[in-house]
Amino acid sequence: MFAELLKDMESPYVVSYNLNMRAVAISEFGGPEALKSQELPEPVPGEHDLLVEVHACGLNPIDFKVRRGALAKGRSMPIILGFDVSGVVRGVGKGVKGLRPGDEIYAAPSLARNGANAEFVCVDARMAALKPKKIDHVEAAALPLVTITAWEALLQRAKIQSGETVLIHAGGGGVGHVAIQIAKLHGCRVLTTASSPASLELSRRMRADVVINYREEDFVDRVKQESGGRGLPVVMDTVGGETFNKSLDCLAPDGRLITCVGTPSDKIPQKLFRLCATLIFEFMGAPGIYGIRPESQGRILADAAKLVDDGKLKPRVSRVLSLDEIAEGHRLLEEGHVTGKLVVRVKG
Amino acid sequence: MFAELLKDMESPYVVSYNLNMRAVAISEFGGPEALKSQELPEPVPGEHDLLVEVHACGLNPIDFKVRRGALAKGRSMPIILGFDVSGVVRGVGKGVKGLRPGDEIYAAPSLARNGANAEFVCVDARMAALKPKKIDHVEAAALPLVTITAWEALLQRAKIQSGETVLIHAGGGGVGHVAIQIAKLHGCRVLTTASSPASLELSRRMRADVVINYREEDFVDRVKQESGGRGLPVVMDTVGGETFNKSLDCLAPDGRLITCVGTPSDKIPQKLFRLCATLIFEFMGAPGIYGIRPESQGRILADAAKLVDDGKLKPRVSRVLSLDEIAEGHRLLEEGHVTGKLVVRVKG
Repeated sequence: MFAELLKDMESPYVVSYNLNMRAVAISEFGGPEALKSQELPEPVPGEHDLLVEVHACGLNPIDFKVRRGALAKGRSMPIILGFDVSGVVRGVGKGVKGLRPGDEIYAAPSLARNGANAEFVCVDARMAALKPKKIDHVEAAALPLVTITAWEALLQRAKIQSGETVLIHAGGGGVGHVAIQIAKLHGCRVLTTASSPASLELSRRMRADVVINYREEDFVDRVKQESGGRGLPVVMDTVGGETFNKSLDCLAPDGRLITCVGTPSDKIPQKLFRLCATLIFEFMGAPGIYGIRPESQGRILADAAKLVDDGKLKPRVSRVLSLDEIAEGHRLLEEGHVTGKLVVRVKG
Repeated sequence: MFAELLKDMESPYVVSYNLNMRAVAISEFGGPEALKSQELPEPVPGEHDLLVEVHACGLNPIDFKVRRGALAKGRSMPIILGFDVSGVVRGVGKGVKGLRPGDEIYAAPSLARNGANAEFVCVDARMAALKPKKIDHVEAAALPLVTITAWEALLQRAKIQSGETVLIHAGGGGVGHVAIQIAKLHGCRVLTTASSPASLELSRRMRADVVINYREEDFVDRVKQESGGRGLPVVMDTVGGETFNKSLDCLAPDGRLITCVGTPSDKIPQKLFRLCATLIFEFMGAPGIYGIRPESQGRILADAAKLVDDGKLKPRVSRVLSLDEIAEGHRLLEEGHVTGKLVVRVKG
């Protein structure tokens, strides 16, 4: 804390912090107990970065996957997780355009860098947008990762068309409940799957046309029934495993199957070739990891903010945690069946 | 032959043949020896069909796959193969528009019906087009199946863009040599693989920018080298097996991998998820089998005919066979390394 005087910066372009911040980080890959609260140096924004004071950060399954070692080979420890943020810009790199200190933004921080389970995080300004005005930071932090995933998958890649029927798995989940809303906004008929009472209720509230309780009926049978035996033009799997394998049987000829998980399966070509199908691997972390199309995710978030402010898109936050409760949040996500989103309130 | 008198039809809409024709057909699935020359009834065109007098038919790997039993479960014998045709319209169904008796057409007959290894074949008029004027029936019969495959895969689905570098495997093969021409016409830089002297020569003549002799160098290494280590945005695999598995390592982030074969592989999700890739299963037989988008292939063939007549697209026929030599054609295709196309001259 010896550099407190730097807090009142003369220029927003001077970024010369040397402060510590509170963060929850891992020093080795492992279980939820690997997450430790610690004092770490504030991050220093690069040329295109915003330094963001974190007000809230969302948790996602990717958090526990990185905690276990996925996508993080070779990175030096400690690693801060947390790949959703809503907060206030406190500094900007030299190359930043359009955003400045004081702006309230939301973004999905890069999976290849330190995340938002901390008081400060750096995000590429091109991948951020002004947060929706009508919701607070906690709700805004629930949106970026899942909204980008659903938007890229359904609108940019599967290119859903008005009138198409789509199956979106786990309608009560983080990606699922936002994907349903996006598909409905684009005029699609939406089938979804859920099982817990809370997820069934959320799926209905998101206006899914058909909510399939997959513990009570086989979703493949129901899809066949709802599609006259033909299968569906678009299926979005956010679950993986057996759900993915069974989804192969839900697709119509020329269909697009989206996986947000990437389940190993030896049945893929056998089923999809004859259908002349397209298999879309949706990994929203690619721009951050490979440094490609940095603006695209910022644009999605700007468009999504408009939808939120128009009352057309709404996140469901099922529980708000403190920084100290992040390990508990990981445990809940690993058990599955979190309805909507878990968000960590960091400030305020 | 008791109905010869019907040959002079008063109306092109009267289709009431009862003639026999010469055909090469299988009465059971098996090896090339299952192909037998026989007298079979002329096919009767349905509402949307053309009855086509076959002048030439192309052979493709799909022929021996169907001969072995693929895609033909439950069909009654005998089955006539041959899924490329160029010939003359001799009758039309009631629903046919735009084509009439006497027209010279080319088409890819449905895989779900009897094919063109015969004096007559029925094809859905919507899937046919007037044949290119500047080439004869033998050359025209080399085009439909491979042109539709390359066109659907590269233009309609992978949506190749001018300036992109694409890898097209087996540039000396049927699909490959046409795919190279289509990609070049769209301003792409084309890498291809080949090994026999004839295929290397054909790949070069098709103006591939880089022809990789895959027996002399590893194509993955070469792709990495040609792409600055990044991989390529589009890879088209027409070969399958190990070529497919290695193609997974040739793709850049956001890349599109096309398979025309559908190789079983347990490596697909592991490699493609992180790349945020799209896997396109290109099966040109889908419209014929499922009765979907019947007009799309006719439009492709009409557009391709213009390219041929403008001297921009040219098939390579490496050998012309007679109906009696179809089994020999199958053997050559099963051994691999046919350069360009094998075509059967049926009339003239």
